[in-house]
Amino acid sequence: MARTMKAAVFVEKGRIELREKPIPEVGPNDALLRITTTTICGTDVHILKGEYPVAPGLTVGHEPVGVIEKLGSAVVGYQEGQRVIAGAICPNFNSYAAMDGKPSQDGSYLIPSGRCGCHGYKATAGWRFGNLIDGTQAEYVLVPDAQANLAPVPDGLTDEQVLMCPDIMSTGFAGAENAGIRLGDTVVVFAQGPIGLCAAAGARLMGATTVIGVDGNDHRLEVAKQMGADLTLNFKRCDVVAEVMKLTGGRGADAAIEALGTQQTFEGALRVLKPGGTLSSLGVYSEDLRIPMAAFAAGLGDHTIKTALCPGGKERMRRLMNVIEAGRLDLSPMVTHHYRLDDIVAAYELFANQRDGVLKVALKP
Amino acid sequence: MARTMKAAVFVEKGRIELREKPIPEVGPNDALLRITTTTICGTDVHILKGEYPVAPGLTVGHEPVGVIEKLGSAVVGYQEGQRVIAGAICPNFNSYAAMDGKPSQDGSYLIPSGRCGCHGYKATAGWRFGNLIDGTQAEYVLVPDAQANLAPVPDGLTDEQVLMCPDIMSTGFAGAENAGIRLGDTVVVFAQGPIGLCAAAGARLMGATTVIGVDGNDHRLEVAKQMGADLTLNFKRCDVVAEVMKLTGGRGADAAIEALGTQQTFEGALRVLKPGGTLSSLGVYSEDLRIPMAAFAAGLGDHTIKTALCPGGKERMRRLMNVIEAGRLDLSPMVTHHYRLDDIVAAYELFANQRDGVLKVALKP
Amino acid sequence: MARTMKAAVFVEKGRIELREKPIPEVGPNDALLRITTTTICGTDVHILKGEYPVAPGLTVGHEPVGVIEKLGSAVVGYQEGQRVIAGAICPNFNSYAAMDGKPSQDGSYLIPSGRCGCHGYKATAGWRFGNLIDGTQAEYVLVPDAQANLAPVPDGLTDEQVLMCPDIMSTGFAGAENAGIRLGDTVVVFAQGPIGLCAAAGARLMGATTVIGVDGNDHRLEVAKQMGADLTLNFKRCDVVAEVMKLTGGRGADAAIEALGTQQTFEGALRVLKPGGTLSSLGVYSEDLRIPMAAFAAGLGDHTIKTALCPGGKERMRRLMNVIEAGRLDLSPMVTHHYRLDDIVAAYELFANQRDGVLKVALKP
Amino acid sequence: MARTMKAAVFVEKGRIELREKPIPEVGPNDALLRITTTTICGTDVHILKGEYPVAPGLTVGHEPVGVIEKLGSAVVGYQEGQRVIAGAICPNFNSYAAMDGKPSQDGSYLIPSGRCGCHGYKATAGWRFGNLIDGTQAEYVLVPDAQANLAPVPDGLTDEQVLMCPDIMSTGFAGAENAGIRLGDTVVVFAQGPIGLCAAAGARLMGATTVIGVDGNDHRLEVAKQMGADLTLNFKRCDVVAEVMKLTGGRGADAAIEALGTQQTFEGALRVLKPGGTLSSLGVYSEDLRIPMAAFAAGLGDHTIKTALCPGGKERMRRLMNVIEAGRLDLSPMVTHHYRLDDIVAAYELFANQRDGVLKVALKP
Repeated sequence: MARTMKAAVFVEKGRIELREKPIPEVGPNDALLRITTTTICGTDVHILKGEYPVAPGLTVGHEPVGVIEKLGSAVVGYQEGQRVIAGAICPNFNSYAAMDGKPSQDGSYLIPSGRCGCHGYKATAGWRFGNLIDGTQAEYVLVPDAQANLAPVPDGLTDEQVLMCPDIMSTGFAGAENAGIRLGDTVVVFAQGPIGLCAAAGARLMGATTVIGVDGNDHRLEVAKQMGADLTLNFKRCDVVAEVMKLTGGRGADAAIEALGTQQTFEGALRVLKPGGTLSSLGVYSEDLRIPMAAFAAGLGDHTIKTALCPGGKERMRRLMNVIEAGRLDLSPMVTHHYRLDDIVAAYELFANQRDGVLKVALKP
Repeated sequence: MARTMKAAVFVEKGRIELREKPIPEVGPNDALLRITTTTICGTDVHILKGEYPVAPGLTVGHEPVGVIEKLGSAVVGYQEGQRVIAGAICPNFNSYAAMDGKPSQDGSYLIPSGRCGCHGYKATAGWRFGNLIDGTQAEYVLVPDAQANLAPVPDGLTDEQVLMCPDIMSTGFAGAENAGIRLGDTVVVFAQGPIGLCAAAGARLMGATTVIGVDGNDHRLEVAKQMGADLTLNFKRCDVVAEVMKLTGGRGADAAIEALGTQQTFEGALRVLKPGGTLSSLGVYSEDLRIPMAAFAAGLGDHTIKTALCPGGKERMRRLMNVIEAGRLDLSPMVTHHYRLDDIVAAYELFANQRDGVLKVALKP
Repeated sequence: MARTMKAAVFVEKGRIELREKPIPEVGPNDALLRITTTTICGTDVHILKGEYPVAPGLTVGHEPVGVIEKLGSAVVGYQEGQRVIAGAICPNFNSYAAMDGKPSQDGSYLIPSGRCGCHGYKATAGWRFGNLIDGTQAEYVLVPDAQANLAPVPDGLTDEQVLMCPDIMSTGFAGAENAGIRLGDTVVVFAQGPIGLCAAAGARLMGATTVIGVDGNDHRLEVAKQMGADLTLNFKRCDVVAEVMKLTGGRGADAAIEALGTQQTFEGALRVLKPGGTLSSLGVYSEDLRIPMAAFAAGLGDHTIKTALCPGGKERMRRLMNVIEAGRLDLSPMVTHHYRLDDIVAAYELFANQRDGVLKVALKP
Repeated sequence: MARTMKAAVFVEKGRIELREKPIPEVGPNDALLRITTTTICGTDVHILKGEYPVAPGLTVGHEPVGVIEKLGSAVVGYQEGQRVIAGAICPNFNSYAAMDGKPSQDGSYLIPSGRCGCHGYKATAGWRFGNLIDGTQAEYVLVPDAQANLAPVPDGLTDEQVLMCPDIMSTGFAGAENAGIRLGDTVVVFAQGPIGLCAAAGARLMGATTVIGVDGNDHRLEVAKQMGADLTLNFKRCDVVAEVMKLTGGRGADAAIEALGTQQTFEGALRVLKPGGTLSSLGVYSEDLRIPMAAFAAGLGDHTIKTALCPGGKERMRRLMNVIEAGRLDLSPMVTHHYRLDDIVAAYELFANQRDGVLKVALKP
């Protein structure tokens, strides 16, 4: 095995480039993966644009499909050569946050104050790849807490079929799960990018019977109809709130899922709700949000607002791959473009500008 | 029985006055109560000030303790002469909203569109007394959906002991319930007025082991220590967020309860939370709220925000009276002042200006 | 309108016959339905055989599709002539049990001790049609608590399409709901009669990805594959527990649904579970059950066992009809036979003996 | 440090004796504790009697209070010399079962089939001390998965104050948690041994307002009144079901907790329930259980039956110690006797025969 590898590195605002880096050492609880397929996420574009700060020199990317190259000495139950994925968020399941029901919020060993062993976890710290440690847009990636985070890929599933599991599908489905969906619900999903599409599909899979996809892009609304939405609304051509009220006989939606991260989508999601409804938010916001009082019933509407960070861990990945293996959902049509890792700059250029109807790009080292 | 009664009526902005009104007719599903004790709520002060709109001529008040004067022909299982309370919110439990788990949001028979029998409920419409129908600051009040809403008072409990059940205690406890409290939690309650005091007491009763009361009024903080708080913080003399972080070893609070209805308390409640924590909001807000992005972890913090309208119905009242009867909580110290209904103008004057250390006023016709 | 009607009456053990009875009077909270379609349930067969005691002279049946003939004076939001269904269980939503979250357990006005207004509800007392009051196998039926229980049928749905909603679908789906299904679950359903078929369909609709139907009748297993099961097992030809362990790689099923009411199915459901799994029981048992200790891990297995009585009420019916209207599930193939009410004795004879591949019989007055 | 230590070892049915054993080697994810206090559990008595099988030569005991003697190389955030406890159940939080919400059910690395990395966990396998690996009735014990299982003891709490946390308090509280207690509940706890006492205390701490302790031993019923019960019933002198029905006005208990492990207590717990009530079972059963059909409403009573294995992990221990540190509950009166480890045979003799009013014995090496 070589000593160095190619990796897509954040150099400075506006520049992600391929560099040569050492292949990492494997500690007792780690695993080294040889990446076979990875992809680019909207968050990576935020990093590229300098909107989300990471350390210069960090390898970016957080969606790995690969093969176990080397296992740490304390990791059992896997074999070198085995095909696996790992979640975009690789929690430390031995942390207080994880045992408290919020694993995505903790990767505590990285946090100095966490070394006290008692307290000190930090929001979103379970997201490590391409954020706190080197990521997956590289020939190799080191998976921390490998015993918890390596998820074997069932035979018969291609890389493309499971490529959405680590992030897009896990996040989108979390949006549906947080929405508390019950049989017969009406659910409105604001924004039909990859995560919104998965949220709509998830809502349908959990028993919502009227799934309404909202976007301003007709192409995405077409895809929405194939992926899970019963109905679609283009906000540029209709009053979404009025339409939802009409479709529900004045009742309002049982739940709304926000999948973009803007004031407009957040507010729309609140306004379509029935009294007592749930707003499940998935977007990454870059500005303070405003809650309009009328839509919030002055605080007397029995509303619930929930946010989610992508759930990780091998059990989550196992369940998502079950969904795909059972044929309940096919996300491979979301992979609209293929690139070699060597062409990563071009891949970012296409994806960041949403050219050519791109939804997701498969990157292969 | 007389044909008319005295009732405190909203005349116009700034004026609530005692008037003579007809005693209401009793329909098949109604009950007429002769009020023995009632009280004034902060919401009534909003009505007095014209900040919350009600129809001129409406009898105000929503916290009844009384005796059944007359039962509707279809109401069974009660006797005339029986002592009862009814919740501030008198839901229609035959409504779609109630069967959907949100009874406080519906009093559907009042809403024209509700007459279609299918849809058309409206936020907060379960709150009827002193809002949509004549209220309790009167000699008599008509209880709608009496079969669902009349709750017999156990022998041995005084009017003052159960006077907080219809609203203050039910609302405050809902704040604790929505906070999802688990054994060993740290819970911070922002504002220690009557509802905040009940929220703190409720949090303690449900198993929180560090209940922190926050207010700017030292007298109320003293009461807080007697009612449920383990610790108190005067926000005028300390940095509440920093103190909570210190008290929790940097972890943050498991939950925070907002009990006032301002940007300051809402925002404080968000800032003290651990990642993944819950903000349970009880206040009535009069302006749009702002969610600061840092405290919200850009939408990635697995946060939950919940609002509540006071739960009603005879089962809720039965449970609250159980708490008092069992001696788990004594709310009668909250009744700091007594007035005759005839002196209602003076009672409002005292209460609205929070003079003389007033917490709650008992009004007796 | 005539003064009398035809009704199928329980005469004595072994005899249900058509009799002439007076059309009921309509009280203020009642509604009178003219039945357009009804059906026979397994429970009716228990009644016929004298295994479940009802009063001689009672009209049997509890699954109504019909038209509102007359509304009680206090019932609003409906119109005479409107097509509706009502649940097999017609709860009193003004009862303590309903407000406590268990509406099916209460029809309290029927219970003398319930007249105290405080306590005294009784298990299963929400089931009134054909159990405590006259049922639906008649030309007319009186619906109690009509405001809560009448559910308008959407235009465009046939009687046959909604005929399963009042009982079979509501019960089967409750089995899936009680199973606590999450995305990616493996669920085993024991017995594939009408309720088991609906339980399997419900499990699939809620996100289970491996739904395994178990029965000893190959015809029913064929139907199971069309209705929701991914896989089927004939217990006469294989060791069901061993097969489930093999299919789950030794893990066991996340949940098992019992849909018959025997020791064999109950015990099978327990044995296929993973540690920490849930047994959701739907059957009506006629003998004491035995819990084998090994399968129960001596009480240390973090098991959950839940039973259900069919949920009712107009909101439940609305949601079930949503599922059908949205095309998520078509239950009309379950209606294998049609009879006129006049031929009810023959209909019972066919259904009780499961002749001619019968699943459900549509009865039309 | 010495190379050998004293340890109480299961020799054969009827014999637990002190032996000299090597002090264990510390792997990268382990920690070695020097035991300062431990205790004997009813389960240990089952082991002594040969009713629960363990390997001859195994060190027994599972309730450690101690000091970290040596940390594994991969364990961070603790210091040698620190006072800690660990749960009786030391789960592998990197297991599928733990991520699936059932950590107590898995210690998968010990199970050969678990080595496949995908499946193969086994009921109760999270319980390792004194069951699958050497236990705590010794001078030293090796804690597996130390990063997850070591819980620092707050300064100011004595060994005796936290000695119940690893098992008795965690199990008893789990009984209350599984009972789904809400404010105002009536809860009946069957058997008032150490676990039943903690279950009663837990039910009270979570908001139950009528906690009824049942036992046949008047001394224990006295202690019950001090620890949490509002009322007590001696089943030898009254009909418990009839008394509970009387106390609840015919309604029945909201929940019942079984804390012994016999047909009698299980059945009693079922019989006192309201329709829709929850039976939370804690006992270790040695024979098949029978569910009487009348009490089970033939499977139509919307009942829930839940079992629990003691929850473990450092977050659980932290919360339990919070309860004690906050003064909500003092369990030190439960420690009725003190013994040196050298006198372990005598300690077992006293405890197994429940002589001298013993509740729990503190053992000190």
